[in-house]
Amino acid sequence: MAGTFERIRPDGDDRERLTCRDCGFVAYENPKVVVGSVVEVEGGVLLCRRAIEPRAGYWTLPAGYLEMGETVEEGARREAREEAQAEIALRGILGVYSIARLGQVQVIFRANLAAPGFAPGPESLDVRIFTWEEIPWPEIAFPSVRWSLEAWRAGLGPPGPPVGNPPEDARGMRPLPSAAEMAP
Amino acid sequence: MAGTFERIRPDGDDRERLTCRDCGFVAYENPKVVVGSVVEVEGGVLLCRRAIEPRAGYWTLPAGYLEMGETVEEGARREAREEAQAEIALRGILGVYSIARLGQVQVIFRANLAAPGFAPGPESLDVRIFTWEEIPWPEIAFPSVRWSLEAWRAGLGPPGPPVGNPPEDARGMRPLPSAAEMAP
Repeated sequence: MAGTFERIRPDGDDRERLTCRDCGFVAYENPKVVVGSVVEVEGGVLLCRRAIEPRAGYWTLPAGYLEMGETVEEGARREAREEAQAEIALRGILGVYSIARLGQVQVIFRANLAAPGFAPGPESLDVRIFTWEEIPWPEIAFPSVRWSLEAWRAGLGPPGPPVGNPPEDARGMRPLPSAAEMAP
Repeated sequence: MAGTFERIRPDGDDRERLTCRDCGFVAYENPKVVVGSVVEVEGGVLLCRRAIEPRAGYWTLPAGYLEMGETVEEGARREAREEAQAEIALRGILGVYSIARLGQVQVIFRANLAAPGFAPGPESLDVRIFTWEEIPWPEIAFPSVRWSLEAWRAGLGPPGPPVGNPPEDARGMRPLPSAAEMAP
């Protein structure tokens, strides 16, 4: 059974940290990096239907947690391979989003297919191309997916600077909205 | 005394994870985010002389680990306040560097001073403005500081796209170079 954690401020530190009451281990929490891509195919974008929680059944970009030992570019390509069985060519950073409430920084690339073909990986129920008009907004998994799609649609990002959080959630602290609020 | 960790591959996972032999706790390791800025002042840049390891005595940008609950922008401003007692205005992302060997993603902004004045904080021995010609290359703390200064000098980044790792270390895996190798 894993240790019992409580929040204690270590000597010399400026904030409380999760500390195991039994063995003294300090489980430092730091924000994690998510890497993903808006993959443009034939004028539309590739979306994956999530097979796993959270938001199983909802549509998302090919994205996931960056692993140790890889660059953000390598991670974005790996996630597209794993979730959409797609080889992608990155075209620059579309946005850097901070989901501060969750301790997450998302680095979202623009991309094209480097080779034809895509198919669901183990974490996807389905993968398909959506034109802007076809995007199923009430079934989009997370606000940041919408932010990415809106930025792509507006022609933002490469060759210009990446976007950051939109004004509606500048501090990255808002909770998940309702289905009705997911529309752009 | 903290738990005894060993690398074991959990069921359903695709790689080994640090697991406590005594209590079963899994200490997942994920890359951490560093946020920092090239702060332009009177045609030069603000550099801080590190008071703490690693590379104490060497010069670096005002930068540090992103904390839970803050955006990358908020973190960059906080670090400038803490390390250089400077209030800065961010002008866009200059670069996103992956130091894969260390599991670090650095988001480096371009910035100006939002209010006059700067001074060393607790983690800095000194803070001063350097023109390009004055930059003490053999005493620069990390390669990514040099990459940031070179990108700034070349006019890269905002209003254009941010730079990534330079070709000399595209995979972010090279070890710390010698002092001689730190020159641009």
